Amino acid sequence: MSFEQLQQQVDFIHEIDKVKYIQRKTKLFNSNRNENDAEHSWHLAVMAIILSGHANDQIDLLKVIKMLLIHDVVEIDADDIFLYDTIRSHTNTDAELKAAKRIFGLLPQAQADEFIAIWEEFEAGITPEAKFARSMDRFEPLLQNVSNNGGTWKEFNVKYNQVVQKKSIIKEGSQKLWDFAKVLIDESVDKGILLKAEQQ
Amino acid sequence: MSFEQLQQQVDFIHEIDKVKYIQRKTKLFNSNRNENDAEHSWHLAVMAIILSGHANDQIDLLKVIKMLLIHDVVEIDADDIFLYDTIRSHTNTDAELKAAKRIFGLLPQAQADEFIAIWEEFEAGITPEAKFARSMDRFEPLLQNVSNNGGTWKEFNVKYNQVVQKKSIIKEGSQKLWDFAKVLIDESVDKGILLKAEQQ
Repeated sequence: MSFEQLQQQVDFIHEIDKVKYIQRKTKLFNSNRNENDAEHSWHLAVMAIILSGHANDQIDLLKVIKMLLIHDVVEIDADDIFLYDTIRSHTNTDAELKAAKRIFGLLPQAQADEFIAIWEEFEAGITPEAKFARSMDRFEPLLQNVSNNGGTWKEFNVKYNQVVQKKSIIKEGSQKLWDFAKVLIDESVDKGILLKAEQQ
Repeated sequence: MSFEQLQQQVDFIHEIDKVKYIQRKTKLFNSNRNENDAEHSWHLAVMAIILSGHANDQIDLLKVIKMLLIHDVVEIDADDIFLYDTIRSHTNTDAELKAAKRIFGLLPQAQADEFIAIWEEFEAGITPEAKFARSMDRFEPLLQNVSNNGGTWKEFNVKYNQVVQKKSIIKEGSQKLWDFAKVLIDESVDKGILLKAEQQ
């Protein structure tokens, strides 16, 4: 590989520093500071390593980690969209695809192609790796809200049924984690940090 | 695996959130905000994926990524020590080993043992994986200081010879990256953002 290609890689490494500035809605486990996308991606990758034994299917852990480390890079151009946003959808928008092509396109061609494909696979959510990676992406904010006395559920008036609906995607990656998550969700109702629709 | 073991894993996931509060000396690529250990670990893991083709030896990339994602977890208990600190050494202190045993010890035994071993392998810096992982850990702050108009070199009056000495460890992981790094270091002298010892 030439110095020129190494320079392209360094340009990409430089560009993705911007991921550290993208604020998520969710807060850290024990504070009022918002988490940023780099911290979030780091945490999900570690979680995948720790929790991979609970996956429903045999998974290529390296691929899952690649997905998780780069899944939010597109938000450099295309914004973080809140899971419970009622106006904008998070699903694979044109803006995100354009962002993926621009940002991964900084890399040498073969790597650009690989990362765009991995990002698309994650977004499609069909393969065992994508399903498990997406279950990590849903499980972390659940743990944060439980830890944070309701966190974004309280802040944005999100109710039990919405949480169950959005979080149930966890079971596609891991039934075991979903069983555990359901216990946490029900305990949150008991504690009064998550309300059912009829409650105010 | 039992729910009890899953709870141990979740306790670990919760504990390592503290990595997001540990401030490094180095700043982000384009700002005056200090980088934290979670952002740093994320960036190094992505760099390892992108740059693994430049490693001197055949490496197990998954192991390298594991090393990089968890290498600073010990700093929850044991502090970040600046690379150019003239009083305290960064090398594998008793405090760090104690921290590794406490923090990874939150995990189920087999995972605790695996992570302590991986962390020790990284610290020892002998295997091809450890050498390459450590080259990432030295290369990122170099890129940051170059991008940041001298960054911590200027702030802490670090001179050319110290940089060459500390950064030359990069060549143990990748001669190619070290050749590239040397160009950046020499260019930094030319630009006046890194001084030689005789310069004030």
